[in-house]
Amino acid sequence: MNIFTPSNPAFEDRVRESFTKQTIMATLGASLVSIRAGEVLIELPYAPHILQQQGFLHAGVTTTIVDSACGYAALTLMPDDADVVSVEFKINMLAPAVGERFIARGQVVKAGKTLTICTGEVLAVKNGEERAVALMQATMMTVER
Amino acid sequence: MNIFTPSNPAFEDRVRESFTKQTIMATLGASLVSIRAGEVLIELPYAPHILQQQGFLHAGVTTTIVDSACGYAALTLMPDDADVVSVEFKINMLAPAVGERFIARGQVVKAGKTLTICTGEVLAVKNGEERAVALMQATMMTVER
Amino acid sequence: MNIFTPSNPAFEDRVRESFTKQTIMATLGASLVSIRAGEVLIELPYAPHILQQQGFLHAGVTTTIVDSACGYAALTLMPDDADVVSVEFKINMLAPAVGERFIARGQVVKAGKTLTICTGEVLAVKNGEERAVALMQATMMTVER
Amino acid sequence: MNIFTPSNPAFEDRVRESFTKQTIMATLGASLVSIRAGEVLIELPYAPHILQQQGFLHAGVTTTIVDSACGYAALTLMPDDADVVSVEFKINMLAPAVGERFIARGQVVKAGKTLTICTGEVLAVKNGEERAVALMQATMMTVER
Repeated sequence: MNIFTPSNPAFEDRVRESFTKQTIMATLGASLVSIRAGEVLIELPYAPHILQQQGFLHAGVTTTIVDSACGYAALTLMPDDADVVSVEFKINMLAPAVGERFIARGQVVKAGKTLTICTGEVLAVKNGEERAVALMQATMMTVER
Repeated sequence: MNIFTPSNPAFEDRVRESFTKQTIMATLGASLVSIRAGEVLIELPYAPHILQQQGFLHAGVTTTIVDSACGYAALTLMPDDADVVSVEFKINMLAPAVGERFIARGQVVKAGKTLTICTGEVLAVKNGEERAVALMQATMMTVER
Repeated sequence: MNIFTPSNPAFEDRVRESFTKQTIMATLGASLVSIRAGEVLIELPYAPHILQQQGFLHAGVTTTIVDSACGYAALTLMPDDADVVSVEFKINMLAPAVGERFIARGQVVKAGKTLTICTGEVLAVKNGEERAVALMQATMMTVER
Repeated sequence: MNIFTPSNPAFEDRVRESFTKQTIMATLGASLVSIRAGEVLIELPYAPHILQQQGFLHAGVTTTIVDSACGYAALTLMPDDADVVSVEFKINMLAPAVGERFIARGQVVKAGKTLTICTGEVLAVKNGEERAVALMQATMMTVER
């Protein structure tokens, strides 16, 4: 993982404040579990209201938590008066998303003034073992708050 | 749009049956509005529980409805004993997802035995006008039911 | 296709001038066949020096011509003092790239001040028939010339 | 990096044999520099015939070498009677591709029976220093030879 020096010393508060406003996170049941400069982790327990037709996590739900993890990883390195929006992302599903809970990790690969490139992954945790179920590559944009 | 001849004459029932099992659709408030061979439309009203930090539809929610629209567009052309899973997709956000409701359209570009390639778009409807807010390119896979 | 009004009346000259500087185009054997506001077509004859291991056009070559077609489609709508660079793209291979010649079409979906979103496709022409062999979705960026 | 056990003990010969048939590699000036189970490196010297309009490596050329690196990384884990084709890939350009030479690294993330998911990166080498200029996420498919 790259080492980044955040320009906003209050980046952790900034991410928590924004996360609280993302109402879809509470709707899904997701919570922030770690915020570091250039890396954010979001956790989501398996639940009956967020599934696809076979009982796995819906690919869109998997995407939602890792999109937010990538966006917030990018936000940790932005100035305090900035906000982050997703320009685009691509995600591969690696395995059926089954497990007791899921951890989405977003990491900054390159932070630019306008665009920030991130990678993300989603791990399924089952019986104490982690398995990668999705891999994302995303472009985030710095916008005015 | 391409013209397709579905091998499963009951493709509409097949899609409706599967959609009902996708619990995330009810959680978001999404419904099926059109099922044709190779094309599916899903509608989602704007609602306070599915947003990101600025009050727009979360990019992951936009993605969820158009992923399902693409997946079901693919399913309309699969045999009755098949199911569909998302291999991967890429989505560009074209504009902030604001509006009274959103329509996700998934269309098959190429239906193969194993893989089906789709394009998807999400339109925001506001004051009777439609505006494209997202564009997707997706790979779906035929699996055993 | 969208209708665009280019800010640079000399957009066709601008594209031709830039295309000539892309030495890879001559190396591959590609040429510009059409330049309109928001749409550019590039043609490439099949040739023995641009193939992959099975004798098809290499996916990277297919990508190269449609990336340029998308980039130049974006450039037609940029100011005269701007240049274009590829931020990212995603491409699906729809069929083996076999044929006498290939036509890459790049089209602008949304032109923004900083980012322009394009779609691209590559058609293979064989015995007078066209067949889509690749589909691209790309993000282009306006930079200083 | 994951540890993989190749089913084909002659995987290195298999990759070299196929690489020789990819005529675009000789056209660009690319060569194989490393073949391990699940990882392949391809090197390309900077040269005047493979550039875009600003004198950087064309994004399509960058893509071509890392697509082959990913495809061959996937091939190292396939049976001897299999061949590999690119289903789709997405690539982000991280920095202008300038340097004396470029190294494309393709790595397998998940090897399935039909589909193999890879990540790739391209490093530019300049004055002895390496800098990442591109990041890829790719889906490869096992086909009959």
